[in-house]
This record gives sequence, C-alpha cells and structure tokens, in this order.
Amino acid sequence: MYAVIMAGGTGTRFWPRSRERKPKQFLAIFGNKTLIQLTVDRIRPIIPDQNILFVLNPQQKPLLLEQFPQLTEENIILEPFGKNTAPAIGLAAVHLLARDENAVMVALPADHIILKEQVFRKALQIGAKIAGEHDGLITIGITPDRPATGYGYIQHNEKIYEEDGIPVHKVKTFAEKPNYETAVRFLRSGDFLWNSGMFIWRASVILDEIRKYLPEMYTGLMQLREVIGTDRYAAELETFYRQIRSISIDYGVMEKAQKVFVIKCDLGWSDVGSWDEVYKLSDKDKQGNAITGNGLVLKSKNCYVFSEDDLVALVGVENLIVVKSDNAILVCSQEHAQDIRELVDYLKRKNMQDYL
Amino acid sequence: MYAVIMAGGTGTRFWPRSRERKPKQFLAIFGNKTLIQLTVDRIRPIIPDQNILFVLNPQQKPLLLEQFPQLTEENIILEPFGKNTAPAIGLAAVHLLARDENAVMVALPADHIILKEQVFRKALQIGAKIAGEHDGLITIGITPDRPATGYGYIQHNEKIYEEDGIPVHKVKTFAEKPNYETAVRFLRSGDFLWNSGMFIWRASVILDEIRKYLPEMYTGLMQLREVIGTDRYAAELETFYRQIRSISIDYGVMEKAQKVFVIKCDLGWSDVGSWDEVYKLSDKDKQGNAITGNGLVLKSKNCYVFSEDDLVALVGVENLIVVKSDNAILVCSQEHAQDIRELVDYLKRKNMQDYL
Repeated sequence: MYAVIMAGGTGTRFWPRSRERKPKQFLAIFGNKTLIQLTVDRIRPIIPDQNILFVLNPQQKPLLLEQFPQLTEENIILEPFGKNTAPAIGLAAVHLLARDENAVMVALPADHIILKEQVFRKALQIGAKIAGEHDGLITIGITPDRPATGYGYIQHNEKIYEEDGIPVHKVKTFAEKPNYETAVRFLRSGDFLWNSGMFIWRASVILDEIRKYLPEMYTGLMQLREVIGTDRYAAELETFYRQIRSISIDYGVMEKAQKVFVIKCDLGWSDVGSWDEVYKLSDKDKQGNAITGNGLVLKSKNCYVFSEDDLVALVGVENLIVVKSDNAILVCSQEHAQDIRELVDYLKRKNMQDYL
Repeated sequence: MYAVIMAGGTGTRFWPRSRERKPKQFLAIFGNKTLIQLTVDRIRPIIPDQNILFVLNPQQKPLLLEQFPQLTEENIILEPFGKNTAPAIGLAAVHLLARDENAVMVALPADHIILKEQVFRKALQIGAKIAGEHDGLITIGITPDRPATGYGYIQHNEKIYEEDGIPVHKVKTFAEKPNYETAVRFLRSGDFLWNSGMFIWRASVILDEIRKYLPEMYTGLMQLREVIGTDRYAAELETFYRQIRSISIDYGVMEKAQKVFVIKCDLGWSDVGSWDEVYKLSDKDKQGNAITGNGLVLKSKNCYVFSEDDLVALVGVENLIVVKSDNAILVCSQEHAQDIRELVDYLKRKNMQDYL
C-alpha cells in the first residue's frame, strides 16, 4: 500500500497567508502542524514512510523538504508544472509500477482536514482490500450533513461490502458542484455523497483505465516509463507536460469508468476551501470568535482573527475574517470569503508582486 | 494679538495611530500636514510667529520641535502634566502678561479642523476687537448643522455687533453635551451654537475672572508670576500643578462669568473627535470609501482605510474603519468608533506597553 499525496496546488483563497511561494498545504492553519504534515501524520500508522510519495512542482520542493527533513528523492515525484490531477496520478502510477507491479495506491490531496482519523484509516484499508480484489476504482464518499454547493457529489447504487459499519457501494454517477436547489435534492435523496477527491486503486488498474479514456496521455506515460532512471527522463517529462491537456481524474476517468466503487463514511472531512471554512472548523469563544496569534476583540461576534506578529484589534464588528500575514492584511466578510480569489487576480493583473 | 495653542492633549480615540508618545495633534490625519501644523498655518496670516505660543508637557516638546524646527523657547510653555484647560490658560495668561500687559490672547485647541479659514480669521479679528473694547470673554460658537451629542452648546442672547456677516451675541447660558432629544431641541430653537472650545480675551481679563471664580488657582498663578525667569520657577510650577485641581475653563470660569460673548459663525469646523469623524471629513470614492496609504477595496462600501506601510485589503465589507499603524491594526465599525477608548483602557490595564 502506497500513498500518493498530491501537493502541487496553489491555493489563492488563503491570501494573505497563502502566497505563490507558500501555498495552502504548507501552512499551519490548525494548530502547529501544516495541512500536509497533518495529512502525512494521518496515514503513517498504516503506510510506512518510504511508501509515502509526494507529487509537486520543483519550486515547492524546498518547502516540502523543510517540513519533512527526512524525505529522500525516492519519495518525491516532480511535475514541471501542474496540469490538474489526471497527469499527476498517471505519473505517480508509472513510478509506483516501476517499484512494485502490485502496488495499491491511495491518492490523497495534501490540504484536507479529517477529524475522524481512525475511521479514515479503516476506510483506506477497506479500499485497499476492494481495490486488490476487484480491479476497481475506489473513491471515498462523505455522508453530507448540509446541502453544500462547493463540492462535487457521487450517487451510489447497491452495497457490495461492509466492514466495521463502513459500507462500500457501486457508483451510479458523478455530479458536478450543484446549485443550492439541486444540493438540497441530493441531500434529501439519501444516496448522494460528497466527492472527497481521495481514491484507492492498483497502479496497474488506473493506468489501464487511463489507456481506455485518455489514450494520448497513456501513450505519453508509457514513453516516460521507458526512460525512468535515465538521463532522457527530465526532457521527456517536460515534453509530456507541455503536450497533455489539463484534466482532472474525475472528469477524465472516474465519470466514464465501469468498475467504480465508493466507500461511504462520515470522517469529519473538509477540503478547507476558504477562510470561512477555517472559521467553521476552529474552536470559538462564547461570542463565536476564533483568534489565532496576536488578536484582541471587543464587542465583536463570530469573527476569525489570525496574526503572526502585529496586534489585530477588533471593535464592534461581526462575521469578519481578519488575517495579518507578512506585509498584508485582509479584512473580509465571511460571506465574501470566496471573492478573495478575485482580489488575488487583481493583484496579479496590477503586477503587485510584493503581495503575491 | 497672541495665540495660545493648547497642545497637551493625549487623544486615545485615534489608536493605533495615536500613542502615548504621539497624540492626535501631532498626526497627519488629513493630507501631509499634522493637525497642529494646520492649526498654526491657519493663524499665521494674522498672528506673527513670535506671538504663537504652545502649551504642552515636556514629553511632547521634542515632537513639537520636530514639526516646528524654527521655534524658540519663548514660544513654548511647559506644563509638568496636563490638568485640563483652566490651568493651561491661566499659565499662558501669566506668561503673556509678563511680555505684554495689553496682550489679547486667542486660545485654540491644537487638534481641530476648520475648512473656512478666511471666515475663521475674520472671526478672530472681530473677537480681538470686542475683547479689547469690552473687557469681555469671547467664545467662538459654531452654527450647528445636525443634532450632535458630542459637543457642548452655547445659547445666545441679543446681538451686540456684526461685521462682514459675522454677528457677536451675548451669551445666555452654556450647556453640557446633550442627549439626542435635547440636541434636536437645541437645533430647532435656533439660538444654540456648538461650543468650539476657542476663546479670545485680554490676558489681564481672563486672569481677573480666574481670580473671581477660581481664587486658589489665581493665588498660585500670582506666585508663579513672581518667579518667572528665576531658578525657583520650575519647582514652583511643579508644586502649583500638583496642588491645583483639574478643571476646564468652560466649567471653571465661562459658565459663571458675566461678560461673555459668542461669535456666531459657520467655519466648516470639527473637533475631529474620533475615526468616524475623520471618515466623514475625508474625500470618498463613488462607493463611499476613503483610502489613505496602502489600501485596496473590493465589493466594499463606506469604509475608511489607513495604512502607512502594509497592504490593507478589504473584501465585501461595509461601514468599517481599518487602520494599520506601526505594530497594530484596528478593525472597527463606524458606530463603535467611540469604544476605541475602551480598547486602549484594556491595553493599559493589561500593561501591553508595546501598543500604547
């Protein structure tokens, strides 16, 4: 069993903490550990360190080594640049097969939060078992507790297996992020789950599925496979990434594949998509304020405050996100947390490099 | 004609810009000049520099000299510590009399804003004339344009003089800061004016009034007068300030005196009492945002932003005051601007000296 941690993301919605050179997964948003450190800690009890691989781009490698000083080159798979999840997963599968032709691969985003770690590890073990036995593609579906519009959904069919109260179902269909009315319908139906973006399969199986549904990508991956470990690898990788299209594994493979299963579980999971989500997941005082670092609140309610240095003082405000980091300060209403992306786009357009 | 600028104030409501070592009058809140520089610029056309005196405490002297490098010791009257306006005015009057027994003295707060400077200067000249002719105490009353509860009021009687459309009335009574209902009544009555805290009188006349209504203070001032220029002055001044009670000239003298007059004028005046007042007086963009320094707003309305260094970015917020200065950031709703005083009190109680 191997873990492939997809660590190449560039979250812009956590500005001013996330910057071009310090994306979200490398930030300590909850407690002292970074999201990627929490991700690794979560799987260490069941996957040995040498079997934990990271896919990311070369600029992020120093950050990774800073946070995991014990890593060796064996653990790191570099993408010249990000092209969404399908190439990252295909590349990791090729590398894993070179090491172990029976490798079972767990693909995990680096920047999610899971509160129920034991259930999670059990789910991974069930997934590995099913993946080994059925040549299937296994995904982890989260029992929804609200009509979230920020997640994709998975509709499940009949149950094929259950262990320790964790059922595995056949997948009926994948659904894109819904509007609110559709999300309410999904929630009521009882057979829709949140798509967590976590997958389990044998490396050989996912490559075979890529062959079926993304044949050009498969051809490129097979050429790469031939040159792994040679001095031609770097140049071929670069060419491969230049040519392939950016596509998610969900859209490119999962939605089309036949033998797709979903492990249905309640993990206390969040993709920590924006500051308001961080606020929701944080411990709060009686007035609903969550303060990390040097913050002070007076006559204020339901605010999230973060400061790594200067004093941030709130007086008479509600429902705000206030973040001081490095040379910038964000003051944002909870309901506009998604619009931080627009703000960062503006900074890019204006070439305000000091703040990116 | 002499000006006495009362510069000893320690505004706490402009935190985090105002600090113990940098009170409001020494801040550039509008444009590049500080409030005290604007105050001096306003009177220079009619009062020569050597006749402009400043009353303040020794800790503030370096700030004053930094902002007015050309000042001599003659221009500066030091109070060991602040004891409200009556002692400051009494002390200044004693010093002025030592220089010029016919001195007419204009007492001005250092931290107010006046938009109509020509009307203001005309009012001072009218005041100096009346003060010379009538041995009276002249105050400047502002025609109110709203039922403000943050100012004291002056009710006037019949007009005794008018020049260039600026009338001078006898004063009927002084009124403390009213509640809203009373303020509405004052506004409707038509004979109530805002008390600007600016006064004009002969130095000998105000001392005579202090003799009548604050006899202990008068005795102390006369003792000081004897020792001006001697090496006993500093010690006697210290003793005097320790012993006298803290009292305003309004409460101690003006409300009791007989020959009190008010110059009624519309000056575009504000005492700039808090950040929301600064917002009101600032130039705004179409969304009602007033930004000074390094600020950026997105989907936000009616906000005041100040930053002397770091980027302050607002997203989806309204009616906020956001001020970054030195090592602190304030995020405050406009309606709670008065509560900043409470915040500063908290910092003092907790002995958070770095932020005071």
